[in-house]
Amino acid sequence: MDNQVYDIVGLGETLLRLTPPKLERLDQSAGFDVQVGGCESNTLSAMARLGFSCAWLSRLPESELGDRVRQTLRQHNVDVQHVCPGGDDRMGLYFYEPGRAPHLSQVIYDRADSAMARMTPADLPTALFQPGRARLFHTSGITLGLSASASATAQQALKLARSAGIPCSLDINFRQRLWSARQARQCLEPLLGQLELLLVAERDIQALWPEAWDASSPEATLRRFQGFAPNSLLVMTRGSAGATLLTPAGELYRVDAFVAREVERLGGGDAFAAGFLSAWLEGKDYPQALRQGAAVAAFKYATPGDIAWINRRQLERLLADPAATELCR
Amino acid sequence: MDNQVYDIVGLGETLLRLTPPKLERLDQSAGFDVQVGGCESNTLSAMARLGFSCAWLSRLPESELGDRVRQTLRQHNVDVQHVCPGGDDRMGLYFYEPGRAPHLSQVIYDRADSAMARMTPADLPTALFQPGRARLFHTSGITLGLSASASATAQQALKLARSAGIPCSLDINFRQRLWSARQARQCLEPLLGQLELLLVAERDIQALWPEAWDASSPEATLRRFQGFAPNSLLVMTRGSAGATLLTPAGELYRVDAFVAREVERLGGGDAFAAGFLSAWLEGKDYPQALRQGAAVAAFKYATPGDIAWINRRQLERLLADPAATELCR
Amino acid sequence: MDNQVYDIVGLGETLLRLTPPKLERLDQSAGFDVQVGGCESNTLSAMARLGFSCAWLSRLPESELGDRVRQTLRQHNVDVQHVCPGGDDRMGLYFYEPGRAPHLSQVIYDRADSAMARMTPADLPTALFQPGRARLFHTSGITLGLSASASATAQQALKLARSAGIPCSLDINFRQRLWSARQARQCLEPLLGQLELLLVAERDIQALWPEAWDASSPEATLRRFQGFAPNSLLVMTRGSAGATLLTPAGELYRVDAFVAREVERLGGGDAFAAGFLSAWLEGKDYPQALRQGAAVAAFKYATPGDIAWINRRQLERLLADPAATELCR
Amino acid sequence: MDNQVYDIVGLGETLLRLTPPKLERLDQSAGFDVQVGGCESNTLSAMARLGFSCAWLSRLPESELGDRVRQTLRQHNVDVQHVCPGGDDRMGLYFYEPGRAPHLSQVIYDRADSAMARMTPADLPTALFQPGRARLFHTSGITLGLSASASATAQQALKLARSAGIPCSLDINFRQRLWSARQARQCLEPLLGQLELLLVAERDIQALWPEAWDASSPEATLRRFQGFAPNSLLVMTRGSAGATLLTPAGELYRVDAFVAREVERLGGGDAFAAGFLSAWLEGKDYPQALRQGAAVAAFKYATPGDIAWINRRQLERLLADPAATELCR
Amino acid sequence: MDNQVYDIVGLGETLLRLTPPKLERLDQSAGFDVQVGGCESNTLSAMARLGFSCAWLSRLPESELGDRVRQTLRQHNVDVQHVCPGGDDRMGLYFYEPGRAPHLSQVIYDRADSAMARMTPADLPTALFQPGRARLFHTSGITLGLSASASATAQQALKLARSAGIPCSLDINFRQRLWSARQARQCLEPLLGQLELLLVAERDIQALWPEAWDASSPEATLRRFQGFAPNSLLVMTRGSAGATLLTPAGELYRVDAFVAREVERLGGGDAFAAGFLSAWLEGKDYPQALRQGAAVAAFKYATPGDIAWINRRQLERLLADPAATELCR
Amino acid sequence: MDNQVYDIVGLGETLLRLTPPKLERLDQSAGFDVQVGGCESNTLSAMARLGFSCAWLSRLPESELGDRVRQTLRQHNVDVQHVCPGGDDRMGLYFYEPGRAPHLSQVIYDRADSAMARMTPADLPTALFQPGRARLFHTSGITLGLSASASATAQQALKLARSAGIPCSLDINFRQRLWSARQARQCLEPLLGQLELLLVAERDIQALWPEAWDASSPEATLRRFQGFAPNSLLVMTRGSAGATLLTPAGELYRVDAFVAREVERLGGGDAFAAGFLSAWLEGKDYPQALRQGAAVAAFKYATPGDIAWINRRQLERLLADPAATELCR
Repeated sequence: MDNQVYDIVGLGETLLRLTPPKLERLDQSAGFDVQVGGCESNTLSAMARLGFSCAWLSRLPESELGDRVRQTLRQHNVDVQHVCPGGDDRMGLYFYEPGRAPHLSQVIYDRADSAMARMTPADLPTALFQPGRARLFHTSGITLGLSASASATAQQALKLARSAGIPCSLDINFRQRLWSARQARQCLEPLLGQLELLLVAERDIQALWPEAWDASSPEATLRRFQGFAPNSLLVMTRGSAGATLLTPAGELYRVDAFVAREVERLGGGDAFAAGFLSAWLEGKDYPQALRQGAAVAAFKYATPGDIAWINRRQLERLLADPAATELCR
Repeated sequence: MDNQVYDIVGLGETLLRLTPPKLERLDQSAGFDVQVGGCESNTLSAMARLGFSCAWLSRLPESELGDRVRQTLRQHNVDVQHVCPGGDDRMGLYFYEPGRAPHLSQVIYDRADSAMARMTPADLPTALFQPGRARLFHTSGITLGLSASASATAQQALKLARSAGIPCSLDINFRQRLWSARQARQCLEPLLGQLELLLVAERDIQALWPEAWDASSPEATLRRFQGFAPNSLLVMTRGSAGATLLTPAGELYRVDAFVAREVERLGGGDAFAAGFLSAWLEGKDYPQALRQGAAVAAFKYATPGDIAWINRRQLERLLADPAATELCR
Repeated sequence: MDNQVYDIVGLGETLLRLTPPKLERLDQSAGFDVQVGGCESNTLSAMARLGFSCAWLSRLPESELGDRVRQTLRQHNVDVQHVCPGGDDRMGLYFYEPGRAPHLSQVIYDRADSAMARMTPADLPTALFQPGRARLFHTSGITLGLSASASATAQQALKLARSAGIPCSLDINFRQRLWSARQARQCLEPLLGQLELLLVAERDIQALWPEAWDASSPEATLRRFQGFAPNSLLVMTRGSAGATLLTPAGELYRVDAFVAREVERLGGGDAFAAGFLSAWLEGKDYPQALRQGAAVAAFKYATPGDIAWINRRQLERLLADPAATELCR
Repeated sequence: MDNQVYDIVGLGETLLRLTPPKLERLDQSAGFDVQVGGCESNTLSAMARLGFSCAWLSRLPESELGDRVRQTLRQHNVDVQHVCPGGDDRMGLYFYEPGRAPHLSQVIYDRADSAMARMTPADLPTALFQPGRARLFHTSGITLGLSASASATAQQALKLARSAGIPCSLDINFRQRLWSARQARQCLEPLLGQLELLLVAERDIQALWPEAWDASSPEATLRRFQGFAPNSLLVMTRGSAGATLLTPAGELYRVDAFVAREVERLGGGDAFAAGFLSAWLEGKDYPQALRQGAAVAAFKYATPGDIAWINRRQLERLLADPAATELCR
Repeated sequence: MDNQVYDIVGLGETLLRLTPPKLERLDQSAGFDVQVGGCESNTLSAMARLGFSCAWLSRLPESELGDRVRQTLRQHNVDVQHVCPGGDDRMGLYFYEPGRAPHLSQVIYDRADSAMARMTPADLPTALFQPGRARLFHTSGITLGLSASASATAQQALKLARSAGIPCSLDINFRQRLWSARQARQCLEPLLGQLELLLVAERDIQALWPEAWDASSPEATLRRFQGFAPNSLLVMTRGSAGATLLTPAGELYRVDAFVAREVERLGGGDAFAAGFLSAWLEGKDYPQALRQGAAVAAFKYATPGDIAWINRRQLERLLADPAATELCR
Repeated sequence: MDNQVYDIVGLGETLLRLTPPKLERLDQSAGFDVQVGGCESNTLSAMARLGFSCAWLSRLPESELGDRVRQTLRQHNVDVQHVCPGGDDRMGLYFYEPGRAPHLSQVIYDRADSAMARMTPADLPTALFQPGRARLFHTSGITLGLSASASATAQQALKLARSAGIPCSLDINFRQRLWSARQARQCLEPLLGQLELLLVAERDIQALWPEAWDASSPEATLRRFQGFAPNSLLVMTRGSAGATLLTPAGELYRVDAFVAREVERLGGGDAFAAGFLSAWLEGKDYPQALRQGAAVAAFKYATPGDIAWINRRQLERLLADPAATELCR
């Protein structure tokens, strides 16, 4: 196994999610459904389900709770053998209360001082950051915002990847409950220019770089934002309004969202990244890659849990025949 | 505890509700979900959740089934210490079958001869009906229609409250399976003029006072109906069409409903009453009070069960920013 | 269908049973499991499952709740076409809380004024009480204790059956929450001498006929009790201590209980009756009939719900090889 | 029971259906809900619920799995006594994964070599195919496509029914996973002319008889299709677009679908057949019969499972007042 | 409410408990049941259920998770109005995995840095620590071991109570995952001599004061241990071996455990304390008080969750007739 | 990945298991729990959970049902990349009804013509059967009894393994519903002598080789049976009576079973194999290996499902301290 080549290596935190069933409230239900979710591992899981070889780097407690995360990711075929053992560290959690208007959906994070928040650069498996061991390295703004230690780890990983000639992608994923816009920007800006691929939600540009945001023109927003990351392929997601891509050379592409009857919204952006990055790894052109991102996101919206529980057969059917509605029997 | 002052004292019946899960039919499901619901206690529960001190008067069997009601109401912080012990009396029940068109929702009441139906005026805690012990007394047409004995009890309570200078409010809540329109009207009319506050659904005016009902103008309906209750503040609820208020002085106010994605409709009127009465107790002006009623009702529609399972934080957020849709994380 | 011959016709009340799952208390669980149970219909259901033609007489509301009982009994192949329509009458219910020591199991009956309690002799399908239409008529002390009207109905049915030459069996089934020992005895004694078959739990002899009860000798108890029913075949059940039979001619037989790991105790006596009566109808000898009764009871104890959910294959396997424990695969 | 007259005798396969709950995927859920469904038995179940006497012919394993089907159909009052015992044959199954766009609903059949696929003409209860024993015989294209043996059985049944003067109806119900359009057409065409009643989905005409299909005019499609079945009353269902009927004499009628909030789509066509055939048996005129078909289908769409879990009260309420939405209490 | 007199005031932490259902493992189940449990609040809940007025002091987050604890305790009639608001502090949790041999039951605490761990002496409601406001103050070794801040708070509460002449009781409840035996002993010993009542499990004496422990004689153990707490009434619990009491004057009493079929063991010691302390408050003699402790503990063992979900009726029945096994109906 | 060395490679069928929850019967429950189980994959899963590298060979349909098996095994860290794609083949199933006396547990297999039954020698990944690629090859009598094609595949695999110098182990696991004792013996005997390790239940020796079976002496049985497999290390399991080992050299060892409170019995033998084989791979001595087998089996009995859901920490705790019963907290 020493020389396995991964299509993608991701670094980040994965949490146990606790959700009251049947649209009950957090103080109302008799039990909680348990899911496993995390920005990078959601992306890797969907990609592994589509056939890509994916390694996930993180730190997990050596308990049944940590094992639960390991098992769930392995179920999707994500390689977790490089996860750093976190001893008696605590497992990061979050409580998710799905809302129907006027109830807003609610997330209560309980991830402070988790095993991943205690990960250090020394916990990184340096053997993976060698030329040819990975075709892409992926992390997110969440990892950079978790703790000083996690941030240092992610920055070190980016550095190691670049040294080894491994292209890097980042999903901004700003979380205001983790850090302020100012803190986030301060941390992120020095890194942006060095990324091969940068994924960002339009609302995160608005929150972090309001001077780039143009309410009337997503294209204008993206072109202005390019000033902060001139060397990166930029993908800006806009929820049900689709996504837009801008190349360093200034070419612009956009895609509409696929029709989706929402079962659960969480994880849509991570699924988009999975579709887009997998197409990019396959060498598809930009319009195809955007479309593949939108397709995987659409499946996610129609699936319970944080992960796009898909397979190749379903993805290819949707790309080939997006209008199909008939049950085959 | 002898001299506790209650914001509101309510009198009425609360039932165990049995509901087949997952939209199954009453003769189809393997089990029933159990809820607790009753017009006045629904109103009191929502108010207690918002911080008001609420006492509920009723009669309950001395069994685990009665205890279940006591416990559920205490959970919401409603004071049940004044509930009359009903010995081996039976617990009132109802079966609720949620419908999707063309299935109508169905309620099968099984409340005849319940503990509450056997409550008598002698069961009332007279110590509560003293000047200064309560800021409002609240009951409903359901309590008046339950049985001769319950009706006498409610009428006696209204009389005691008035003697003690405690303002009274009534929610008409006509139930055709309990009594006929003729019976209801005969009982209610002598009481209407003595109420400080009167809540009534537009459809109940149509059913009981058809001569007041004007299909083309809710305002006209309400003004005509005022003839029956000239001294009361009148609040007419109109479901998703909002609500209208008419003061004895002839001032008219109206409010739209808040946007709500319906999870379960039952209890919406009781929640409206909770919002309106709590604002009235806070001394808010009429437009604000109507708006608070509409807000609590909207939360109820988006919540499973008969009770608006809310808190101050949620209510204030909705009143401040009704258009918010974004999950905060 | 006019001339169908039934192996057994039973008359009695069947209730919806509501049970908290997972050994929770009645004021603790989030929902109730729903079962259908009644002394005579439990017996008929097990017999119908074994291939006997069984008609159940009763009165049920014309609602989804009554339909639920009809459907459940039909599921077991009991003929419910002769059940009297009870319009808007209420459905009889009971709440069952399974206990583990020191918690006692608890039953809260809620059957007063039910449809069956309102059944009258005029509701009986007289066409069934003709010579040759049934091989056995069966009812219980519960039916006789339900209400004056139900009691008159049961007594009329016994009379009609005897006139038509149809043998009658009765399961005493004393329920102290329905009537006192004195009332029960007063009603039952005049009927006992006319029965072909009489089933009685030893504890019911102790409760109703303490002068017959001999703590040290079940045989003595039964012989003394025979004075009250000299013409009947007497079967005295003794729970896990087995059962004893005494013929009018004074022959005595006994059987041990089969080994059973108890899942739920309710309905064991009714299942015993099903096994015994079915063997009697098949013309088996008394030891075989007692053994078949004990076998069906054992299956009931190992099955959730009030009904012995068995089939011929299982019964024959147990009778042939009571010691088998090995899973066949 | 020898001379019971059935309103309808149906022949076909019924399967156990396994469905992941809560919109989860087939490889995601911790358990499966179990339902029972089959084209003809769905139709018979709804008709039996409405009060018609219905016999179902099929072949089932002699196991608890076969018993489950027997019990469920008996629950709806379908007579299963003529079902052929299938020994250790396997129970036909299907897995159903409900989809939300972009997920398509998915059916995985697992019915090859099932007990019903092994049914032979010799398994038919010939005593039922005598003059006057049934008012209608009903089967479907599914039964004809199951296996050579099942097809021969269905053809023999049609022949016997015709010989006995029993009118025959067929629901085309083309299933591409069972056979090809060419095979289906080859088998079906010789039979069409001999049917009293022929039900067909518009999409099945398109799939099997594309030369008859006219995208712009359902009426034209149906008139062209009449060439293949000139002696039959033709009913073409069009999902939410309603249904159209064409008599041998060339009279054309159509009906709109009733408003239905879809809970589960499966079984809608079978429910339509139940409503239409029951009205036909009641001697209602064609517009009434189409409307009754549409009504039962609408109830099915709003009910979980394959069977229209209705009763007379509900059907009559909908036919009388299709616009009612108010909960009665 | 200013002058309410409480029978007991308790101080401690209450946690959300997450438990996999159906004996599954923590990394196996699809969801977790949610319970609420804490040493002192378990004791108070059982006492409140028996009719005592109980106030619980603690610190809880101002979120739906904190509300869940407030609601559950109120459900049992525990007064939570004096609980200190903990803002965005985290909710303490624990994961409980019930074991069957050879699986040990497992507890994973996740309570570090919880709201309660952040409680300070300044958060105590001093108005409650006035002469005559409470008849007993109760806390546990857990509270003293939680954090420096919680320990200071508990010590301050003990001091305030003593100053106000309120008797104090302590349940040792040593938790090795919170602190070492050495740390615990160092903290506890200075406090022991000042307590009116001291409850301690025999295994905790063994762990903390091994020099006092005598494997062959519980009485000897207790007499030796008295040297550490010469002024306290000592109650040593011994699980299924019963309990022993030693007065400062040297009188010794013991009680056997009641027969209990274990449903869930957690909370048994807290339930014993509830029974004993309630009898002490009622002025019962020592043997009666020990017996009441054992009775409440027995009910707890037979009930799911951490709390003895009992009522007066059940307790009195058990004390009067411990051998009853018969279901009353 | 080309040169990964597996500790064990297993070949066999894995089925979806469908089980009614809550001890209900197969024709009673509203749904089925879904598990994944198969002799060899159960063994591999437990070994992978303990840290061994395990590859599973089989054939699975290319559907969500096949994916379910792949995902579950990957969850336990079993390598499924070498599983042969089975296209539209059907997924093997079994229905499992847990029994309590007198109900026997029941298994209904539905595995005829499954994907695995269609596996052929050509489907074997020959690259795995090279010297040094695996330390052990494992299969069972079930695989040999499934179908002619599966049998040929297993025999070919044994042959390939031996050619490559890979030791082979076989678990006899006689299934009378798959083949007769005569057929099984005929197939197995020629293979026995070539196995390094042979696991067999005492009851299978009794069923297949009655001439070797000695009711009074397991040791005698095993010594006689050795005649059929003189070159193999023989391990005879005896359920709760422990296990016995006999070396080719005639040394005999035995071990008692560990105390286990049975949650579910299925899979105990496979778990024993996992424990024994893992110890054998670790080079432990025979008594230790037998003890490790007994320990893993004990964990399985106390765990729901077919797989011993364990980890290293639990196993080591049990081996070190088998008498521990105390919950650590």
